[in-house]
Amino acid sequence: MNIQCPMPQLDFDLITLGHGSGGLLTNKLLQAGVFDLLRNDLLDEHHDGAVFSLNGRVAFSTDSYVVSPVFFPGGNIGELAVNGTVNDLAMCGGMPQHLSLAFILEEGLTMREFWDILVAVKSAAERAGVQIVTGDTKVVERGKGDKIFINTSGVAPLHPRANISRKRIKAGDKIIVSGEIATHGIAIMSVREGLEFETAIHSDTTNLNHTVARLLDRFGEQIHLLTDPTRGGVASVLNEVARDTSLGMEIWQKNVPVDDEVAGACELLGLDPLYVANEGVFMAFVESEVAGEFLELLRADDKGRNATMLGEVVAAHPRQVILHSAIGGKRVVNMLVGEQLPRIC
Amino acid sequence: MNIQCPMPQLDFDLITLGHGSGGLLTNKLLQAGVFDLLRNDLLDEHHDGAVFSLNGRVAFSTDSYVVSPVFFPGGNIGELAVNGTVNDLAMCGGMPQHLSLAFILEEGLTMREFWDILVAVKSAAERAGVQIVTGDTKVVERGKGDKIFINTSGVAPLHPRANISRKRIKAGDKIIVSGEIATHGIAIMSVREGLEFETAIHSDTTNLNHTVARLLDRFGEQIHLLTDPTRGGVASVLNEVARDTSLGMEIWQKNVPVDDEVAGACELLGLDPLYVANEGVFMAFVESEVAGEFLELLRADDKGRNATMLGEVVAAHPRQVILHSAIGGKRVVNMLVGEQLPRIC
Repeated sequence: MNIQCPMPQLDFDLITLGHGSGGLLTNKLLQAGVFDLLRNDLLDEHHDGAVFSLNGRVAFSTDSYVVSPVFFPGGNIGELAVNGTVNDLAMCGGMPQHLSLAFILEEGLTMREFWDILVAVKSAAERAGVQIVTGDTKVVERGKGDKIFINTSGVAPLHPRANISRKRIKAGDKIIVSGEIATHGIAIMSVREGLEFETAIHSDTTNLNHTVARLLDRFGEQIHLLTDPTRGGVASVLNEVARDTSLGMEIWQKNVPVDDEVAGACELLGLDPLYVANEGVFMAFVESEVAGEFLELLRADDKGRNATMLGEVVAAHPRQVILHSAIGGKRVVNMLVGEQLPRIC
Repeated sequence: MNIQCPMPQLDFDLITLGHGSGGLLTNKLLQAGVFDLLRNDLLDEHHDGAVFSLNGRVAFSTDSYVVSPVFFPGGNIGELAVNGTVNDLAMCGGMPQHLSLAFILEEGLTMREFWDILVAVKSAAERAGVQIVTGDTKVVERGKGDKIFINTSGVAPLHPRANISRKRIKAGDKIIVSGEIATHGIAIMSVREGLEFETAIHSDTTNLNHTVARLLDRFGEQIHLLTDPTRGGVASVLNEVARDTSLGMEIWQKNVPVDDEVAGACELLGLDPLYVANEGVFMAFVESEVAGEFLELLRADDKGRNATMLGEVVAAHPRQVILHSAIGGKRVVNMLVGEQLPRIC
């Protein structure tokens, strides 16, 4: 579902400082494309914020996106910014409908690039079923930014059966991962390093909210935690949860799903896929009794077809993550130290 | 109410790329200071977002802050980021309680500077009565950012009597401005240009939500529009409203409140105060019958003591803003073209 949106005729090709002034040029930029492209009643109000109705419990999340390069195989910063926050809300048990969108543009960004990013925002928002209802545009001088940074924030009513908190995790819970890991990180890294593979590795950035909603419909409070292993990867999530719950985590190497080509690239780059950033993948900590059924339902969904039972939560070795290797050995998986892949999202 | 918060002992002085990794260093940065300083139950969940309850109509707003310099007379980017979004929500008739906070840090930012900004965030949040409930931290390479950019977003239940929309504005409405204009823009500009005045001109950044709530308590739906004239200043707001309502605006020079020293600086810099960015000031479009009372109540509030009746909405000269000069002349006030003061907020 790629949208064809021809760029409007404009009398400028480059973003200048004036486009951040709040005056005529800002208006021209917004009127020329942004408002039309993202049109909805709330945005049409042109006010300092959006006003709408929302009942009961809500999830609220924010993320700034600084991915470099801005365009990469499988997407660009625009869809990443929409999917990322949609997914963060879904991980809270939220059903996202409204997002905010704030740009920090570097002077000299071409309107062509900005337009392509906007179209990606629109397209990702439509797929996720969310509206951009309020926004902001700032421009900084050349050399004080890097083409474009995007912040998206979102507020979402909670799924009525969601009760997601790491405090609910207990020994015995199963840990499920929804798909092949490390794909996004390697897609970005291979562009940056100029690596060539037989087929280009594409980012798997996508919205997970509909998939998660179906799981919540069926399993509700039997799902203890949902979380997406973005920066720091699966290993960081496991370590954080182990730390916060004072429980141990055990995972099985053979159940770590990695695409062959991605695995090959990881070897070439000396990276452990467990630490590589993900998009389009989530982890679930669920009641042991329903784990099998959960996995089955997840695998029936296109976005979960490669899901696996990664491991389980244990009372032994509190705060430690243990990996059982394919050949029967064991090793501790530590928290990532320092930076492996800067600016991956 | 300045908070004394000694910076914790850390084993690093500078922000590095690793602090954006999502791994151990990110955790160290957050655990060392951010989470402790901004502590609340929702933030303590350490999840991808915050979950809380909210009933009925809500306002939702976002802004990215890129002010340069980051520290200026009267404040820093931290309190600007809190006050700015609190005020945008208040302008929608919202009663802000929850904010998100997202940092884009440039590698090499000192922990000292970051800490001072965090303390300003905390202090401004306390004054406004809001909690920081979710956040994000990214780090970009040296030369790809400018010390620190902050995005804050917020969601706020609406005041029960708020009905704010530029569609409600009609000929006869009075236009009120809550205080002396151009102060913030000139405070920033004078630092940048190295200007010296008898006394330093301080930014008037402050939260306006409590003041607005009192006005809504009393005047409710008789308030048609509230808006804060930040970038582009008072002139841009008037032009935008004239355009969107197809009505005319008339204002009186003698009722444009400007501090003497700020007026002097404007002359020196060749700037018209009507176009200079504001913080800590808002404009209200209200029913003519209650305008006098509104002004009286506003003036009784410390944050509105210099409020004036700036002008009125007219059916004549649609989409045009006319200024009546002190000596009886008239001139058209146009939309700002280009950029007057980049990176003012």
